[in-house]
Amino acid sequence: MTSWVPVPDGSDFPVTNLPYGVFRGQTGPRIGAAIGEHILDLTGAAERGLLAGPTSMLRTGSLNAFMAAGPAQWSRVRVTVATLLRDETARGRVEPLLVRQADVRMAMPFEVADYVDFYSSKDHATNVGRIFRPDAEALLPNWSHLPIGYHGRAGTVLVSGTDVVRPRGQRRPNPGDEVPGFGPSTKLDFECEVGFVVGRASERGTSVRLSEARDFIFGVVLLNDWSARDIQAWEYVPLGPFLGKSFATSISAWVVPLEAFDAAVVPLPRQRPAPLPYLSGDGASLFGLDLRLEVAVNDVVVSSPEYQYMYWSPAQMLAHLTINGASLRVGDLFASGTVSGWQRDTFGSLLELTWNGTEPIALGDGQRRGFLEDGDVVRLTGWAPGPNGSRVTLGEVAGRILPARE
Amino acid sequence: MTSWVPVPDGSDFPVTNLPYGVFRGQTGPRIGAAIGEHILDLTGAAERGLLAGPTSMLRTGSLNAFMAAGPAQWSRVRVTVATLLRDETARGRVEPLLVRQADVRMAMPFEVADYVDFYSSKDHATNVGRIFRPDAEALLPNWSHLPIGYHGRAGTVLVSGTDVVRPRGQRRPNPGDEVPGFGPSTKLDFECEVGFVVGRASERGTSVRLSEARDFIFGVVLLNDWSARDIQAWEYVPLGPFLGKSFATSISAWVVPLEAFDAAVVPLPRQRPAPLPYLSGDGASLFGLDLRLEVAVNDVVVSSPEYQYMYWSPAQMLAHLTINGASLRVGDLFASGTVSGWQRDTFGSLLELTWNGTEPIALGDGQRRGFLEDGDVVRLTGWAPGPNGSRVTLGEVAGRILPARE
Repeated sequence: MTSWVPVPDGSDFPVTNLPYGVFRGQTGPRIGAAIGEHILDLTGAAERGLLAGPTSMLRTGSLNAFMAAGPAQWSRVRVTVATLLRDETARGRVEPLLVRQADVRMAMPFEVADYVDFYSSKDHATNVGRIFRPDAEALLPNWSHLPIGYHGRAGTVLVSGTDVVRPRGQRRPNPGDEVPGFGPSTKLDFECEVGFVVGRASERGTSVRLSEARDFIFGVVLLNDWSARDIQAWEYVPLGPFLGKSFATSISAWVVPLEAFDAAVVPLPRQRPAPLPYLSGDGASLFGLDLRLEVAVNDVVVSSPEYQYMYWSPAQMLAHLTINGASLRVGDLFASGTVSGWQRDTFGSLLELTWNGTEPIALGDGQRRGFLEDGDVVRLTGWAPGPNGSRVTLGEVAGRILPARE
Repeated sequence: MTSWVPVPDGSDFPVTNLPYGVFRGQTGPRIGAAIGEHILDLTGAAERGLLAGPTSMLRTGSLNAFMAAGPAQWSRVRVTVATLLRDETARGRVEPLLVRQADVRMAMPFEVADYVDFYSSKDHATNVGRIFRPDAEALLPNWSHLPIGYHGRAGTVLVSGTDVVRPRGQRRPNPGDEVPGFGPSTKLDFECEVGFVVGRASERGTSVRLSEARDFIFGVVLLNDWSARDIQAWEYVPLGPFLGKSFATSISAWVVPLEAFDAAVVPLPRQRPAPLPYLSGDGASLFGLDLRLEVAVNDVVVSSPEYQYMYWSPAQMLAHLTINGASLRVGDLFASGTVSGWQRDTFGSLLELTWNGTEPIALGDGQRRGFLEDGDVVRLTGWAPGPNGSRVTLGEVAGRILPARE
């Protein structure tokens, strides 16, 4: 069933998608749902009584309060919004609440509580191991037993479209030098990732079971984990990535409800060795997702990673994150880690695509890139199979590199 | 000059200290300043107009709004509060706002934005290197050039007095086993640290200079970075500590203004190799702090770490944290890392005190500990030289271990 709102062919936002975001209205940030080339102003719909049930959660200018209302409210609002957009008789009341996407700027869709980045692609972990630790086994012994992850900087998670200033920092001393190098990163990179937004808090001292994960995951975003490889390589032993990542992480402006991906659920790749019981379950509780991603630099597609081959699933990441009793907060964000396959044209970072800059890629017009240059725009897009042969898109996350500041 | 409020000899809270905290009032959380065995209810003082200037920032039940008001307001309020508590003529108006500390429970003093943990003790880093990487150089090449740090979990930073549930998790497989161990941590540890509370935001893309650090650091807390060594040892390569730390981090309920430590400023230990320019400065901008710490397990003192020997200073940590352009938010918390000296009775963790459990310490009554047992209470205290031979104390951070949950 289609919407009375005109939705162009190939639009990112058919009525089967309905992602949530926050746009900058004339009087401040407002919550909206994307439909075709428009946004349905849900804050306005709540104010006008078009959404039954509790609606103050939609008037806060951020998705956090809505998320905190819990999965039953997520489903109720989703059904109500879809009905309003499909029901021709609602058009008179609803149409005044449509805003053109082209006329507004998007804001951060939610306040990030804690941000955790995982490392769930076996191919990515293997590639990075080969590049950073050429003298050791590429895949470390712990990798196959648990989803390796670390905390990132929540305060520098940025909405798509925000410029990224090239970071400065220390680099490993050159052979023979006693002093480390210092200056703007010369190995600035993207990482193509998928992020999961936690919409429900958990009690400290308890753990989320695989089978409960769906009730905690509100939605899905595209995520670019910008990385300065030269800074990272010097700092990361033994406590992990820090300044090489903390300057910026970009997410898409639209959070797609997990429900919208029901038709994209696929089995996980076979996991051997068998995971421990808290990471083991049936297909329904483990669930993989068939998300087709694409990375473009200056509008030239450089990679097409496929999420379905990721080793650790979103539910496994969440179960692992809480197995030690760490509590979840509404607004927690956890990301998959770089999505890479085994073929070069599915590598999700320049580190891998250019093998640490040694094999630059062509961008057309004679342009080549080992790593990102000032002015470059990186754009990640993604879609998944939707109901009845349709597509559910993840929108995009884009960002431009600005020169380092003094 | 003393206060008209009776302050017992040896009290943690003479009028020269005046730390800020949040206590649970009958109608919700209220901001207070500690004086002797009492708390001056600053929310009440603001409501009654006893504090000139803007005071709505003191009515929010959290220190964040007050911190965001900036260093000039921090100084103004501190002077005003000290005057009210010293001036006998103010007694009639102020005395009704005193609450006995014994009658109230303390709450988290501020909302933590991002939490970063550094690794600034050379002795600690050396000890950990020897224990975790016995076959390699104890101190890694990067350590002497930059303050190594990583992001921790802000959502599990807890106020002193909160119980800590023993975490569960994966452990390295025993020799010959294919499957990792799993269960409650058998190597639960404390880390005696000092935390610095950021009270001022910075712009993304800019860096805080050493000489500016004082204007960004609102105050100081004691911090216990609870650590599960068995979980940490299995997970931490290559992305750093994660579940081995993320279950709980405890801070003292009282945030001592940085100004209160003016008499405790000492020169940093000599730094060789010379740090890069952004980490180099004169004594005033680098500033070390003479903080005397003490760790007690079940009221038996097991260690007396001295903060003054830490290699990297608070200003250096802050300058490094932002050298890549990462922005600061009000409520950011960064910690020193375990404070350890070169003598065993100044080691700040059981990992070091018992050399990874191989040399248990005595707690009296025939009790010995390799690591913490259920029911154990860990209490960190600290003080520093104050003006005119007085002491400024850091209060305490205490927590009890509860058994792991199923």
